[in-house]
Amino acid sequence: MKQIIDQANKIAIERMLNAQAVWVDIKPAHEVVEGMDKYTLLHAGPPIEWSNMSGPMKGAVIAALKYEGVAKDDKEALDLAEEGKIKFSPCHHHSAVGPMTGITSYSMPLYVVENKDQGNFAYSTINEGAGDVLRFGAHSDNTVKRLKWIEEVLAPVLKKVVNSMGGINLNVITAQALHMGDELHMRNGSSTAVFIKTIINALVDVVEDKNELKEITKFLTTNNDQFFLNLAMCACKISGDAAHGVENSTIVTAMARNGVNIGIRVSGLGDQWFTAPAAAVEGLYFSGFTAKDANPDIGDSAIMETGGVGGFAMATAPAIVKFLGAGGYQDAINYTMDMYEICDTENSQYTIPNLDFRGTPTGIDIRKVVETGIAPAINTAIASKEPGVGMIGAGVSRAPIKMFEDALVAFAEKMNL
Amino acid sequence: MKQIIDQANKIAIERMLNAQAVWVDIKPAHEVVEGMDKYTLLHAGPPIEWSNMSGPMKGAVIAALKYEGVAKDDKEALDLAEEGKIKFSPCHHHSAVGPMTGITSYSMPLYVVENKDQGNFAYSTINEGAGDVLRFGAHSDNTVKRLKWIEEVLAPVLKKVVNSMGGINLNVITAQALHMGDELHMRNGSSTAVFIKTIINALVDVVEDKNELKEITKFLTTNNDQFFLNLAMCACKISGDAAHGVENSTIVTAMARNGVNIGIRVSGLGDQWFTAPAAAVEGLYFSGFTAKDANPDIGDSAIMETGGVGGFAMATAPAIVKFLGAGGYQDAINYTMDMYEICDTENSQYTIPNLDFRGTPTGIDIRKVVETGIAPAINTAIASKEPGVGMIGAGVSRAPIKMFEDALVAFAEKMNL
Repeated sequence: MKQIIDQANKIAIERMLNAQAVWVDIKPAHEVVEGMDKYTLLHAGPPIEWSNMSGPMKGAVIAALKYEGVAKDDKEALDLAEEGKIKFSPCHHHSAVGPMTGITSYSMPLYVVENKDQGNFAYSTINEGAGDVLRFGAHSDNTVKRLKWIEEVLAPVLKKVVNSMGGINLNVITAQALHMGDELHMRNGSSTAVFIKTIINALVDVVEDKNELKEITKFLTTNNDQFFLNLAMCACKISGDAAHGVENSTIVTAMARNGVNIGIRVSGLGDQWFTAPAAAVEGLYFSGFTAKDANPDIGDSAIMETGGVGGFAMATAPAIVKFLGAGGYQDAINYTMDMYEICDTENSQYTIPNLDFRGTPTGIDIRKVVETGIAPAINTAIASKEPGVGMIGAGVSRAPIKMFEDALVAFAEKMNL
Repeated sequence: MKQIIDQANKIAIERMLNAQAVWVDIKPAHEVVEGMDKYTLLHAGPPIEWSNMSGPMKGAVIAALKYEGVAKDDKEALDLAEEGKIKFSPCHHHSAVGPMTGITSYSMPLYVVENKDQGNFAYSTINEGAGDVLRFGAHSDNTVKRLKWIEEVLAPVLKKVVNSMGGINLNVITAQALHMGDELHMRNGSSTAVFIKTIINALVDVVEDKNELKEITKFLTTNNDQFFLNLAMCACKISGDAAHGVENSTIVTAMARNGVNIGIRVSGLGDQWFTAPAAAVEGLYFSGFTAKDANPDIGDSAIMETGGVGGFAMATAPAIVKFLGAGGYQDAINYTMDMYEICDTENSQYTIPNLDFRGTPTGIDIRKVVETGIAPAINTAIASKEPGVGMIGAGVSRAPIKMFEDALVAFAEKMNL
């Protein structure tokens, strides 16, 4: 039995490691999400109904419905949702991922990332930067205006950029950034700087209007160090999806939080989610906020840890541990060392200089999580539980062991053990 | 006696640590170097005559004389030099620093960097990028053409950029880059990326012609990861100069190599250079080259180590040790730990995450070098000894102990010990 599982995991792991994420295009959500209309919204995490959604997710729903023009104000948006007129579906069910609330609607331009190994695709919205942004539940006029600007100005330009460059290999940027102090979940300063450097020539080339160019460079360089995150999430999503669906494999292929629950999916267990209440995040709060203001853990960005970076690569980014309130240098090392205990392999594409260039711990095995009792560490932003307030801190959450236990039970049942 | 020296060193060290390097302008060399004419050339390292110069430095002299139009070809340039028509002077004698050959001529645009603490200035040329560049002794038509382009296109734009931004604090970029895996001597990928990100909005703003903008962004982003080095050298030069001239201080304020000799200057010992033959560099050679092809250690860039970064900050940049052929992660740590032994202080502005945010070792004390026998480690490029071939490898050199011994003897004599 162990041999069968190990063999299956080997296949899943190979697909995960061999994934080559290339950003190839930008398309509106409705072109890549089958059956999507303006009353369909994708959200972060496992499935959730409107009535159960957290404050920030509800706020983001309002923003998206106003952005799509199906509601003229907050009240109309709320009414539509209350009346059950909106179809909700997890991003993860559509090869997509969304940070924080993850709310993704019909007209939003999405990154199209292709796995040059297995041929699968992943999609994500374009990062809105900081401030009153939809992903944290803001739904002001300014939130909607920024989304429109992304759709009408930024996205067409980025589409031209990536088309003119013939695609951009995201694994290469990720590998570089891991040698530049990014763990790529909560610290993306280096990946974003490398990304800007990578596209700048094409950007200057494709934009005819100088003021437009200024707007775009300003957007990319001002309070937007997390800009690369959404692309990095796509890269991890395609590796997770590539590893998914291998019969008898116990490898985790997705971890995601909707702000109320967190769920995992396992390669050999089909489309089932194994869920638990979303954890509180241990972390540091911005001035004026405390744990009482915090929404529980939220967002699809735990796909980063599923892919072996983020909290799993903490050792390469000791500067982040202070920001996360997670100790000092040795703690950064310890996080990563712990994650080796619950993973099946190391990613030789992604190495950690501080561990003498050891590969990042990759391929969470539900057996190992249950066996060791070590919960995956997820680096994360903390959202206010009130919609529209935004980010109020950052920290580390732990994926509850219960999900892995439940998955292991389901696995045993499936195997008739 | 020890107390007097310690007290003097405290003053020197404080000036070194308090230096705030702000890039404020770009001016042609002749505007900032007193008495400079087109027959004056500045060079790296301690004083050296034409007849003793290394191959690459002679090549760079030819390039500069053609660039200035005082020689129409290589032969005319060589004749001028042979006939003693050219006045040579170290960059360091004019508040300037130059990487590798350091050849700096009348029309070359120089960075103007101001120390907002002590008010002194430092100057350096603009990095030419990779290839057949003057700093490695190339003197082809293309070398001269590139220098002209820097003078006529790039420099006026960078001048507008820095003027429009009201100055750029280089300490801030340095501190960031140290948290992004740069040691800022041989690894400047992060500092350069942050620099580009810092100036991009102003750059887009001040350049009217789109093709010119494309040329410039291409130059900055293509094989030019060391672009920030020259600015970083200015930052270290102003801190060294700020610490210079403190009576009774044994702190090293400059280390520099001219390709034949290496020299140091000491705060309390005036303008005297203490020299030794330039060391061979231990390192890795590019394909097709060996130690036999190498010029001895060359360049003013050892000002980086004088300022506490470069080889002294190796611990923060473990990814560089492989490139330098200097071992693995632990070796990176060891280099920095050794340097603490010969320095008087740690720079709390510049911290090393991998050492739990300990400050970089700063303020080389000639007493400690002699006492411990630990020679300062200098990260460096290796130039071919043939002019025009360029960079053939990279490695670590050691500043010969003899210079520190000689300086200590001179110091004792001065103190009548």
